[in-house]
Amino acid sequence: MITPAVLERTVRAALEEDAPWGDITSTALLPEEATATADLIAREDGVFSGGDVFSAAFLLTDSAVQVDGLVADGARFVAGDVLATVTGPARSVLTAERVALNFTQRMCGIATLTARYVDAVAGTGVRIADTRKTTPGLREFERHAVLSGGGSNHRRSLSDAVMAKDNHLAVLQASGQDLASALRAGLARLPHTTHVVIEVDRLDQIAAVLEGGADTVLLDNFSLDDLRAGVQMLSGRAVAEASGGVTLDTVRSIAETGVQVISVGALTHSARALDLGLDLRID
Amino acid sequence: MITPAVLERTVRAALEEDAPWGDITSTALLPEEATATADLIAREDGVFSGGDVFSAAFLLTDSAVQVDGLVADGARFVAGDVLATVTGPARSVLTAERVALNFTQRMCGIATLTARYVDAVAGTGVRIADTRKTTPGLREFERHAVLSGGGSNHRRSLSDAVMAKDNHLAVLQASGQDLASALRAGLARLPHTTHVVIEVDRLDQIAAVLEGGADTVLLDNFSLDDLRAGVQMLSGRAVAEASGGVTLDTVRSIAETGVQVISVGALTHSARALDLGLDLRID
Amino acid sequence: MITPAVLERTVRAALEEDAPWGDITSTALLPEEATATADLIAREDGVFSGGDVFSAAFLLTDSAVQVDGLVADGARFVAGDVLATVTGPARSVLTAERVALNFTQRMCGIATLTARYVDAVAGTGVRIADTRKTTPGLREFERHAVLSGGGSNHRRSLSDAVMAKDNHLAVLQASGQDLASALRAGLARLPHTTHVVIEVDRLDQIAAVLEGGADTVLLDNFSLDDLRAGVQMLSGRAVAEASGGVTLDTVRSIAETGVQVISVGALTHSARALDLGLDLRID
Amino acid sequence: MITPAVLERTVRAALEEDAPWGDITSTALLPEEATATADLIAREDGVFSGGDVFSAAFLLTDSAVQVDGLVADGARFVAGDVLATVTGPARSVLTAERVALNFTQRMCGIATLTARYVDAVAGTGVRIADTRKTTPGLREFERHAVLSGGGSNHRRSLSDAVMAKDNHLAVLQASGQDLASALRAGLARLPHTTHVVIEVDRLDQIAAVLEGGADTVLLDNFSLDDLRAGVQMLSGRAVAEASGGVTLDTVRSIAETGVQVISVGALTHSARALDLGLDLRID
Amino acid sequence: MITPAVLERTVRAALEEDAPWGDITSTALLPEEATATADLIAREDGVFSGGDVFSAAFLLTDSAVQVDGLVADGARFVAGDVLATVTGPARSVLTAERVALNFTQRMCGIATLTARYVDAVAGTGVRIADTRKTTPGLREFERHAVLSGGGSNHRRSLSDAVMAKDNHLAVLQASGQDLASALRAGLARLPHTTHVVIEVDRLDQIAAVLEGGADTVLLDNFSLDDLRAGVQMLSGRAVAEASGGVTLDTVRSIAETGVQVISVGALTHSARALDLGLDLRID
Amino acid sequence: MITPAVLERTVRAALEEDAPWGDITSTALLPEEATATADLIAREDGVFSGGDVFSAAFLLTDSAVQVDGLVADGARFVAGDVLATVTGPARSVLTAERVALNFTQRMCGIATLTARYVDAVAGTGVRIADTRKTTPGLREFERHAVLSGGGSNHRRSLSDAVMAKDNHLAVLQASGQDLASALRAGLARLPHTTHVVIEVDRLDQIAAVLEGGADTVLLDNFSLDDLRAGVQMLSGRAVAEASGGVTLDTVRSIAETGVQVISVGALTHSARALDLGLDLRID
Repeated sequence: MITPAVLERTVRAALEEDAPWGDITSTALLPEEATATADLIAREDGVFSGGDVFSAAFLLTDSAVQVDGLVADGARFVAGDVLATVTGPARSVLTAERVALNFTQRMCGIATLTARYVDAVAGTGVRIADTRKTTPGLREFERHAVLSGGGSNHRRSLSDAVMAKDNHLAVLQASGQDLASALRAGLARLPHTTHVVIEVDRLDQIAAVLEGGADTVLLDNFSLDDLRAGVQMLSGRAVAEASGGVTLDTVRSIAETGVQVISVGALTHSARALDLGLDLRID
Repeated sequence: MITPAVLERTVRAALEEDAPWGDITSTALLPEEATATADLIAREDGVFSGGDVFSAAFLLTDSAVQVDGLVADGARFVAGDVLATVTGPARSVLTAERVALNFTQRMCGIATLTARYVDAVAGTGVRIADTRKTTPGLREFERHAVLSGGGSNHRRSLSDAVMAKDNHLAVLQASGQDLASALRAGLARLPHTTHVVIEVDRLDQIAAVLEGGADTVLLDNFSLDDLRAGVQMLSGRAVAEASGGVTLDTVRSIAETGVQVISVGALTHSARALDLGLDLRID
Repeated sequence: MITPAVLERTVRAALEEDAPWGDITSTALLPEEATATADLIAREDGVFSGGDVFSAAFLLTDSAVQVDGLVADGARFVAGDVLATVTGPARSVLTAERVALNFTQRMCGIATLTARYVDAVAGTGVRIADTRKTTPGLREFERHAVLSGGGSNHRRSLSDAVMAKDNHLAVLQASGQDLASALRAGLARLPHTTHVVIEVDRLDQIAAVLEGGADTVLLDNFSLDDLRAGVQMLSGRAVAEASGGVTLDTVRSIAETGVQVISVGALTHSARALDLGLDLRID
Repeated sequence: MITPAVLERTVRAALEEDAPWGDITSTALLPEEATATADLIAREDGVFSGGDVFSAAFLLTDSAVQVDGLVADGARFVAGDVLATVTGPARSVLTAERVALNFTQRMCGIATLTARYVDAVAGTGVRIADTRKTTPGLREFERHAVLSGGGSNHRRSLSDAVMAKDNHLAVLQASGQDLASALRAGLARLPHTTHVVIEVDRLDQIAAVLEGGADTVLLDNFSLDDLRAGVQMLSGRAVAEASGGVTLDTVRSIAETGVQVISVGALTHSARALDLGLDLRID
Repeated sequence: MITPAVLERTVRAALEEDAPWGDITSTALLPEEATATADLIAREDGVFSGGDVFSAAFLLTDSAVQVDGLVADGARFVAGDVLATVTGPARSVLTAERVALNFTQRMCGIATLTARYVDAVAGTGVRIADTRKTTPGLREFERHAVLSGGGSNHRRSLSDAVMAKDNHLAVLQASGQDLASALRAGLARLPHTTHVVIEVDRLDQIAAVLEGGADTVLLDNFSLDDLRAGVQMLSGRAVAEASGGVTLDTVRSIAETGVQVISVGALTHSARALDLGLDLRID
Repeated sequence: MITPAVLERTVRAALEEDAPWGDITSTALLPEEATATADLIAREDGVFSGGDVFSAAFLLTDSAVQVDGLVADGARFVAGDVLATVTGPARSVLTAERVALNFTQRMCGIATLTARYVDAVAGTGVRIADTRKTTPGLREFERHAVLSGGGSNHRRSLSDAVMAKDNHLAVLQASGQDLASALRAGLARLPHTTHVVIEVDRLDQIAAVLEGGADTVLLDNFSLDDLRAGVQMLSGRAVAEASGGVTLDTVRSIAETGVQVISVGALTHSARALDLGLDLRID
């Protein structure tokens, strides 16, 4: 969740990164009293995300700036739509512009890509979930954008749910213990509120990880047939999650195997910035 | 420049974002004394960037981890190449893995895209420069990646060079003063070491901005013919920079107009993460 | 988990709180070259916790101080035992002493009280869990102390598991919706990895909260009979947790009702500091 | 003193510790527009402290919350009393509740315990003072609570007054110099505004420490007879302070020996949280 | 530029440095409801600078304080002038007084000294510029004061313009390369917006540094004749800057050699605090 | 006291202020492997202060730099003396040079001025003390420099000793209470370790402030005769401190009146930077 504290801290840092000692161009060239009105314009179709961040970039630069007509996060728009209107001192509007756009274009890019995946599985009831493949420093912003696109979030970090992957299992089993016991022993000191995801590569691992305490079984890089078999074996005793080789072309057939969650790294690591512009109205 | 202070602060923040209260999976499941060796493998061709950041992610997690065989920033590699080898406590290697990859994949993605633009203008002597369209919080990292790809950096921020765009000129001229005088008056109180970039949309603005004190004239969205004419008009009195509508298809013909710099927002806002993996060697 | 980052940040802040501009007594009165050896002595019986914190207080004051013979967290000791020995520059040993003790006495106090609850339910397999009734700023330290005492941690914070209490249900139901549907609708956008605890006051709420998606049902202030009935109704479909009115006198009979978890606010909000002293050996 | 800066910083840190990425329960389950009124209720008798902190926890969560009817710090109350009333968005009230209580219960616990000591010496004019045995990170809050209970503060930290204890004197005297000269030499470079407390174990040290420059002589673990003798020897030339073995049973007889200050570590290290609750009024 | 963020951060730090746990004198002795009015009085002639900082010291202490009648930065005043009037709670006015004066006296001192240099070169069109010889932590404040005095700023830091001094050239030439080539090679990877200052000690270096890419040539410790010769040699191809041996006695003759900039370390490293006082009006 | 924490924090901030994104000149022009040796040379006579700070500027830039032969704080030197020698990577030596000098020149300036005052009162036993008229952010550094010069420190801040000035007394007395009673009442809730300084303008205030609890009486702007009379009236019951109108010409006669402390704002607010240089040895 983008809390007010996270929002303010991150946007302030971005503003300071972009103008550590002020915007020398605007200060030198624009009269202090000049005002400006500018429209946030979509230059391509998409799904909106980041309204609060867009506003914060302006308001934390200058509380005299006003942001109106902001479309809601999650709203779909087409090229040419006005997504918000910004009014205020011209210096401040131009100083904050780039930071506002840098955040919003990225978030809309992620929301838009997410929505394409979500649309592709429409009607199946499957969740399209993000991963930890996010931009360092912006995880909450990118998770929010995934929600705006109709997707779901996965665990937030290494600290709030267990996810044991092939590498963990490999090291764990090097000890010679059987997998289920090793898992149960390892997980025993965690809070009873900890959700446990275990990744498997093969159907024959499922029984052991269920016995080991998995709440979700992540079927990684399974064929469609194996996914169906895996869902069968889980029979509701754990959430069935699929990952690996998920593209817009394959996601629907994966969804139709009966898994409940499909996690897609591309939502955040490969979304490109959506094309938005801030057009000044010169009166 | 990614100074040691910026490097440590940013990587620490990313590690804390990803594991604010530790990696509960590794701690619960891996024996404290287990060690691991892992190779950073290229899963596609590209240009390397971010070696220091990759190392820092592991070393700031645990100074007992060792990173060897790191290829140099700027080196080209092909799918399958080993780009570095990480050895150390298994818990620490797995804890830092995702953050190390999140940084490096992004930086390699930018370096690789930059190199394609740089290759496209090979022999012309033109600089391919980045813009301020960077990821909030990661500007120095992305600027460094552009350098790794053979590109050039533009001004760092709003604080260290003037760049007057159409919007600035529009507000400035609303006062009724002639452009050259308005510019000279506005720029007079800046340090004599301030570089001044003025963006123009039309050839007929060039004389005025030169007289107004431009060190660089940014010819925005000019046709190839107009670029050639602009370069002629500048005749070395200011740097000729082109921007707008630059793609891998158009960049060479733009370069051949005689401009010295081409700035490309896509280098940072539209590069996708390069596919790299960390493969554990299980002994 | 007390990560190295949390440890260093918190201990440094405590040292700075206690000596913002140095220890004027030690600097004024002790020769810079004087060394000291001091023993951490138990003045009453207890369970140890906070060894890393104790060490950090000295090492972050002066890396020339050495801490040896530290007993392990979780170890039981009796009055008179030496729990650690500190050697180093006399100024530094005396400067860090109070902060080291302030942390360790509190953590040992919590571990010792926890152990009494854990001992009281020995053999039942029930977990004694902490709550969010911790000292502001020291949550990870107090959670660690609970683990040292053989207890279990509950959710870390408001951000990492749902716990719906009577107040939440009251507000939720003010809308007129039936409870199960309201819960399911509300929880739908959370990650599939989120554990959901629902607190109930009466047996007749159990069916609805199970249907609403509870992973744990917290039976608050139930009589022993109602606890037994609740456990029956849950029949393994959710974890059965008891809270309210838990004392050293009542905890065993509560444990014997079949609940799996008993959460006890007193572990952290009412533990008193254990009496430990640092005795200087004067050579 | 709890300055506004210290108040805000500490309460914000506590709120962030308890909800680093928001309160997922309230956000998921409570309608954004729901409001709530809640009363802070005493569940046992006591002395109030921490009104500003209680308010800040709510206001820093959401400035739309209002806190009314707050009793004054230092006021005595009985079980059942309403100590404050909180009104505002239900989500915010429930999000801030635990942090507000964690601070206030601890501060009221300290104020209440202090008041018992102060009551015990009523009429003697003796000050009951705290020590540095405070919770790391909360010293100013606990010192304030001691004041609320009618007690006195001692020096704030190692940086703002000299307190030479047995260990200091032992090291100091290892040099062979006589105590008074060693003290005078050591203290000479300190500001003339530095108060000097010297702890003694035996009556025969008093003359030397007075000559050495003590402003306060701390008579540690003295018998009542020795305390009386010590007060006599000091005859107003330094403040007479007693410490060691102070309990509610012994404090009055100690006070009646004529000492001016009695310092009591238990005020802060052994006060338990007072039982307060926040009762929601459901309309 | 003193941005709002820099202003707030620096003034808050100064207030905290001067009253980390409050102003115990004012709190102990002044009634909370007492108000005070105080005038900022010039005790000697000078040039004003630091109005925003003066105000911030009071407003960040207590938003109930009002600062009126502040003269503009750059305004000249004579002894006895009232430069501002402060009204508000007496405690807050007295708490903030020293910090407000510490900043303002220093800034007015710098502005006043700068104005003397600027006056000395009146009519020549030469800029009097500052250097990096500023007080650690206060660079933006001192640069602003130089502007208030009619002076000019030089580069902000080591990060935003090249300045190659004798030491750099000595090391650079140790390699055996010719100077112009070595410079060109070294500067090639910097952004095209980087201004390059090269310091020379002798006239015969000028040709090489121009060829090497100097935008400004700093003629260090040149005789007046050599300055004139240097200006001639530069003939507008680079800015001519003089430094070294600049005093109020010599600055005019240096200015008359035709250089465009004279940089003066004394503006910041040797300005003494101007004598200002805050006089309380007792009603 | 300049604690290691304060030292590191302040020097790091200064280095970052001076090179937020690195030293572009050194990086561009100096070979990474070039080394340099440089001597810190006194260009005028003085008293040294700031050795630790000088070293820290280099070591925090690059731990490969070595600082040798540092003269001790408090040592006197003459023009031409070598005060330290710095060896290491040329880039790092040149990057840190300015910050190292900015700190050291200021501290030596203060130490040198202080020593002149101290010399002027030689043999009288009077302390020359500083005031709170220090540079914002550098108080501990300037207090240390005063000690290096043989002076004494006054209270550190508004938080650690009472100093009631004319303005406080004026507001206090507006209430109509007699001064002694008002003071006693006000001071009663402060710790017994708080030193109380009361400033008086006239001899007839002395009796009241003694009765009110003054530990030091500050005789402000007294004539020499009145100072003598004041000292007489105090007769050892409080420290006699003089301030106001203290110059190098008047300080000795003030000292000879019998006061114990003379506080001098000029030590810190009017010391100019001492002329030191860092001379590179080119091999």
